[in-house]
Amino acid sequence: MSVIDSSILECHNGGASYSLKSPTVLPNASAFLWNKKMLIQANCRGYAIAQFMQPEAGKYVSGPALEAKTFMQPEQPYYAHHPGRFVYVKDNVDGSIFSAPYEPVRAPLTHFEFIPEPHQISWISEYKQIRVTLCLRLPTETAVECWQVKVENLSDVERDISVYPYFPVGYRSWMNQSGLFSVDLNAVVCRSIEPYQKVQDYFKNQCLHELTFLTSDVKVDAWETSQHIFEGEGGLHQPSAITAKSLSNSEANYCTPTAVMQFNMLLSKAETKTINLLFGPAKDHQQVSEYRSSLLQIDSFDTFATQYQGYLQKGQGVLQVETPDAEFDAYVNHWLARQLYYHGDVNRLTTDPQTRNYLQDNMGMTYILPEVGRAAFIRALSQQAATGEMPDGVLIAEGAELKYINQVPHTDHCVWLPICLKAYLDETADYAMLDELVGFSDGEEQATVAEHIIRAMQWLANSRDERGLSYINQGDWCDPMNMVGYKGKGVSAWLTLASAYAINVWAEIEHSAQSEYSAETKVLLTQAEEMNQQVNTYCWAGDRFARGITDDGRVFGTEKDEQGQLFLNPQSWAFLSGAASNEQVPLMLRAISENLETPYGCMMLAPSYTQMVEDVGRVTQKFAGTAENGSVYNHANAFYIYSLYTLGEGDLAFQQLKNMLPNSDDMQQRGQLPLFIPNYYRGAYYQYPAEAGKSSQLFNTGTISWFYRCLIENLFGVVGCKQGLKITPQLPSNWETAKINRVFRGATFKIQYEGDKNYGKPQIYVEGVLLDGDCISEFEPGKSYAVRVKIPIK
Amino acid sequence: MSVIDSSILECHNGGASYSLKSPTVLPNASAFLWNKKMLIQANCRGYAIAQFMQPEAGKYVSGPALEAKTFMQPEQPYYAHHPGRFVYVKDNVDGSIFSAPYEPVRAPLTHFEFIPEPHQISWISEYKQIRVTLCLRLPTETAVECWQVKVENLSDVERDISVYPYFPVGYRSWMNQSGLFSVDLNAVVCRSIEPYQKVQDYFKNQCLHELTFLTSDVKVDAWETSQHIFEGEGGLHQPSAITAKSLSNSEANYCTPTAVMQFNMLLSKAETKTINLLFGPAKDHQQVSEYRSSLLQIDSFDTFATQYQGYLQKGQGVLQVETPDAEFDAYVNHWLARQLYYHGDVNRLTTDPQTRNYLQDNMGMTYILPEVGRAAFIRALSQQAATGEMPDGVLIAEGAELKYINQVPHTDHCVWLPICLKAYLDETADYAMLDELVGFSDGEEQATVAEHIIRAMQWLANSRDERGLSYINQGDWCDPMNMVGYKGKGVSAWLTLASAYAINVWAEIEHSAQSEYSAETKVLLTQAEEMNQQVNTYCWAGDRFARGITDDGRVFGTEKDEQGQLFLNPQSWAFLSGAASNEQVPLMLRAISENLETPYGCMMLAPSYTQMVEDVGRVTQKFAGTAENGSVYNHANAFYIYSLYTLGEGDLAFQQLKNMLPNSDDMQQRGQLPLFIPNYYRGAYYQYPAEAGKSSQLFNTGTISWFYRCLIENLFGVVGCKQGLKITPQLPSNWETAKINRVFRGATFKIQYEGDKNYGKPQIYVEGVLLDGDCISEFEPGKSYAVRVKIPIK
Repeated sequence: MSVIDSSILECHNGGASYSLKSPTVLPNASAFLWNKKMLIQANCRGYAIAQFMQPEAGKYVSGPALEAKTFMQPEQPYYAHHPGRFVYVKDNVDGSIFSAPYEPVRAPLTHFEFIPEPHQISWISEYKQIRVTLCLRLPTETAVECWQVKVENLSDVERDISVYPYFPVGYRSWMNQSGLFSVDLNAVVCRSIEPYQKVQDYFKNQCLHELTFLTSDVKVDAWETSQHIFEGEGGLHQPSAITAKSLSNSEANYCTPTAVMQFNMLLSKAETKTINLLFGPAKDHQQVSEYRSSLLQIDSFDTFATQYQGYLQKGQGVLQVETPDAEFDAYVNHWLARQLYYHGDVNRLTTDPQTRNYLQDNMGMTYILPEVGRAAFIRALSQQAATGEMPDGVLIAEGAELKYINQVPHTDHCVWLPICLKAYLDETADYAMLDELVGFSDGEEQATVAEHIIRAMQWLANSRDERGLSYINQGDWCDPMNMVGYKGKGVSAWLTLASAYAINVWAEIEHSAQSEYSAETKVLLTQAEEMNQQVNTYCWAGDRFARGITDDGRVFGTEKDEQGQLFLNPQSWAFLSGAASNEQVPLMLRAISENLETPYGCMMLAPSYTQMVEDVGRVTQKFAGTAENGSVYNHANAFYIYSLYTLGEGDLAFQQLKNMLPNSDDMQQRGQLPLFIPNYYRGAYYQYPAEAGKSSQLFNTGTISWFYRCLIENLFGVVGCKQGLKITPQLPSNWETAKINRVFRGATFKIQYEGDKNYGKPQIYVEGVLLDGDCISEFEPGKSYAVRVKIPIK
Repeated sequence: MSVIDSSILECHNGGASYSLKSPTVLPNASAFLWNKKMLIQANCRGYAIAQFMQPEAGKYVSGPALEAKTFMQPEQPYYAHHPGRFVYVKDNVDGSIFSAPYEPVRAPLTHFEFIPEPHQISWISEYKQIRVTLCLRLPTETAVECWQVKVENLSDVERDISVYPYFPVGYRSWMNQSGLFSVDLNAVVCRSIEPYQKVQDYFKNQCLHELTFLTSDVKVDAWETSQHIFEGEGGLHQPSAITAKSLSNSEANYCTPTAVMQFNMLLSKAETKTINLLFGPAKDHQQVSEYRSSLLQIDSFDTFATQYQGYLQKGQGVLQVETPDAEFDAYVNHWLARQLYYHGDVNRLTTDPQTRNYLQDNMGMTYILPEVGRAAFIRALSQQAATGEMPDGVLIAEGAELKYINQVPHTDHCVWLPICLKAYLDETADYAMLDELVGFSDGEEQATVAEHIIRAMQWLANSRDERGLSYINQGDWCDPMNMVGYKGKGVSAWLTLASAYAINVWAEIEHSAQSEYSAETKVLLTQAEEMNQQVNTYCWAGDRFARGITDDGRVFGTEKDEQGQLFLNPQSWAFLSGAASNEQVPLMLRAISENLETPYGCMMLAPSYTQMVEDVGRVTQKFAGTAENGSVYNHANAFYIYSLYTLGEGDLAFQQLKNMLPNSDDMQQRGQLPLFIPNYYRGAYYQYPAEAGKSSQLFNTGTISWFYRCLIENLFGVVGCKQGLKITPQLPSNWETAKINRVFRGATFKIQYEGDKNYGKPQIYVEGVLLDGDCISEFEPGKSYAVRVKIPIK
């Protein structure tokens, strides 16, 4: 592995775009675009994974075999027939063929660029002095891909070429699949009927789109809709249909359909021709026709780009930074809020987001569109049971059902209510929300938001065993830790600590709102203290808190275990909950440092399990170093970072924040561009060192909202409170200066941080005037304030 | 399309083996092997589909993406990364590469043969004077593939080559998948954990095999277990790992695993080296070790071949033929009983065979291992409800559950009881079986087999509407005809006719057994007559019987329909049940001839549906000309043929039998070798002529037992009765002679048929003595009898 330098990767405009100049150095490097209806992740070589909402997330293209329906997977493997969007180009004089962006031909391109930008993804491929520039954009409201194919003659002579967009559709249905060309629509239209057997599914399937189409603004010269005729004996890297003079205009009648078009071009010296394509799902031919009218007009793709930028603008967040760390700035200024916005705006393309994800994603939305976050909290509470228990998933679409992991009972969902709500209240001071009346999922009763949360806290307090530890049932935050307590007795140290922390946070909220604790909260606070104590009594193990106690009474997550000796979460949350004493903290930090730290972040547990532990569960069956089984699971790292800041460990915390991002030294090992934080990097650092650090490539993660929150509350210390904006930064000690723009309750604060040896504590100047204390409370929306913060340095 | 002549396909030993000499003329041509534990279908180009029982059918290799679990599908598409078994060969001097048998390199082989035999499948591939001979065999009891790889130097000089078996394992699990090489086992061992989320599935999954292994009797020189490292930038057609001097001995740690070995060889002129490989699933390394000890010894593959032939021998059936039609003889003598045996011995690798399939497959078993058929009938009856209703599937393994289509209620299962039992009783005269006591699925009651069947007939008689027509509910024999009667009112003309026929057959059985009808049966016979009458009253439509009447009272399957105007089954079964009068028969035959006949057999319905008909159902959504939507569905054709014989239409019947088999004229269109009868050939002859005739390649079909029955009862007319063997042939009129060997109740009858102008009815000579009547009743088991049958000709 070597350092990725600018010969391989260029960063433009402070991270507003990147240019990756090789299709082989980071072969899985990808970017994603989404809108309200769809999501597409495209990689540098041309492979793509797309989903759209109908209203459940579905695909409109598949691989070459009937695929299992499943949730979004990490580390998706690509293979020759993986869905993608490709353009073959044939020189009609010498017969040579290449494909843009790189797959499937893998010709030795003379120039290659993969250019992700927040609002579009482009590829440049040059071969034998023909340049193909592909650009993918999305409209903001429609599930359709807009592809611009620009073909340019870089040579000194006229070129006779044929250009073939090849958008494979894949094996879609054993009941009915086909493909044809519609002259009227200038489109390949493939049709498939969702396979099923039960009559009730016929009615359910009415909402599905049967068609996948590819249409062009340029009249095609020939087409192909049959995958096997297209490939022939030549294969994908040299399709027989392309070596022939003309595609054969075949229909696919119950065989794997595909969408291929042929455009013959004579290009004079330096001439460029452009083909605009729409690709996506449709209900019927009429809809394809409407898409053509509304989306395939002159310059419409440029209009979409502008509109899409406008859409992203709405999610730009409240923070822009200029620090000594350019790589950090690039992500924070151009990609962080975008990833947050993706989560909050489309809920990971599910109709039943897991409750904890929904609450945390909307905690992030607090910094983007707080009114959306507010509505989400209210919606989640409206699905709470009157007992206080939260459901496993929040249903957010008509007819949605709890699916996949949401059919397994988890015990932690209540925890997230006050924790996430606090970020919202700090940002908005909308304490009136606490008095809003909301119903329950069972019965007609209504209660205030505050009462809802108290009930949730009471449910947590009650869901404990005779020792006062929290039952884990079939999982807490750690979904696959499903056999610690499935017999009804096992407990979670983490959940007990998290419950204590949640209660404390709630008490803080209540105190901010009404300057005193309610009677219920007083009881809860006593219980929280007891929780901390009992975790100390039963789960403290020398230099760490154990992870829990199994159904059969076995304390696990300590050095007595063969594997899974140390878990990150119980330590982080003991820091947060106050369970860890001043004596314990340094022991725990050392244990983490010695056992969990890697150059890519902290592993969630170590050593990773390599065999099933039947009283721990499914987590131990996951491959060592992946996901919850000891990966660098960024969500857990985010908790750790947040807790480090509460300990005042700003330098360590910042190092951990940085570890979440690929940098030029380790990017090749991670295999990912710094456009998003993935849900994990491979862990098992000592067990599988060759794999450690490899990105999951999955950008769905609760990490992002915590990353943002750490920047706001801790790193830059620009967190709201009832009175205004508190300035309590914890900058890395090696930063001499930093500048940020912080938008807060309508005002803009241009804050300059400077190290200063003269003071023992920060000095804050607002418009040149030294602030008394750390809270800026006098400001007006719409106005801008210059703030200087002098930070003591040694 | 051209005639397949002997330059492409050779038939050896009267059909005992074939040699297909091109990998491209019939690219999907395949053969299959099975044993008690597994099934593998391998095609001429090297792709393979394998399943094994654990105890549910599962796979041990997958495609490159997570596959949906489903039943066996027709017309499976192959693609570059489809599972298969391949051997790359590299010339270490010039670096040239080819792969045997053909995929993935697709080199221009100088010689190619695909040689299916009943007990093994072989391939010969020659390139640059290296010959690779692959041979696949199975042991009779173990789920493991035995591959012999012979490499021969055909040139005059020493050759320095490397040989690389490449057995891809595919994407198996998002939870855990890996591959490594075990030096002790000289094996690549890949491991995957079945992905799941619910704790109860952990316990269910205990029975699953986590390992897929490839082990060799020759020490490997290098290996690879990571699919992406194997392919590199070269791709499957030119893998980077193979262009390198040595495979890189990599582990696959949570990435798509594969099994590749490298054997370096110096081959002197004419030298042959052999590598024996075992490939399959295993529970653990210990099991792989045991397989090596027990299965990978010197000559053990030859032993398996002998044992496997012995296994097939047990299923050889009771008929060998020598007719003027060599293609017919080839199938009947070498492949027909084999296909029957496959169905009867392993029940299509399901643990819950659909009741109608189970009964019909075991009807076929009557001619193979009648005691197996008998036990199956008893088992099926033991799962009957006391009401007489039969379940949708018969559970034949511990813990089995009704799956897929067996979760949809169908109404025809009772019909098959007497129909299938009759074949058994005719063959064995085991009328004592009728008195055997059998329980019911509900309650403690026991009843004789005869009573069970009477209850089944009564259930049919009772499951009729006020008109006397049979309710169809969510389907009858036609599974996807699921919306004719899902509201509870729709009726099936076919089922009404089939019920009448079943009752008549039962009455015949009873009469044979006890020379009179029981009181219950007398009532049933009256009801059967009424059924025939009422179908005539409500469903006769000019020249055909309609298919049924929908929930809303619409008669369908007539010329009034836009599509689906004529269905084959109601006609065939009206012939069988006696509903069709002498006036109606010729009208119906003409309608069939004009609307349904094709060179590949009769379409099941016509025109095929091209859009959903909501009061008919799912069948109308299947692609036109596939499966039940108007394909040449051989099972329906078999009913038709059987009914034609009851009409005395022997010539037409034989033509239809022949239509089930690919012949040299149409084999390229069908795309299949005559080793099995597929469940369908594409129909929609007038709608999609280019596709018509294409084989489904799926050899699971109820057709086979009826094909055999037609040969026994009708074509050769050598059917049993209580008194002995009845000789009532209906040979095609253009046959002057034919010879058969018929084994019957332990005796062997060597029967010679001869046309003779001198008689008005057949004359039967047994050992030279003219028989009085048509029944040979005096014979002894173990003895052989020469029989001459003189058949009147005009």
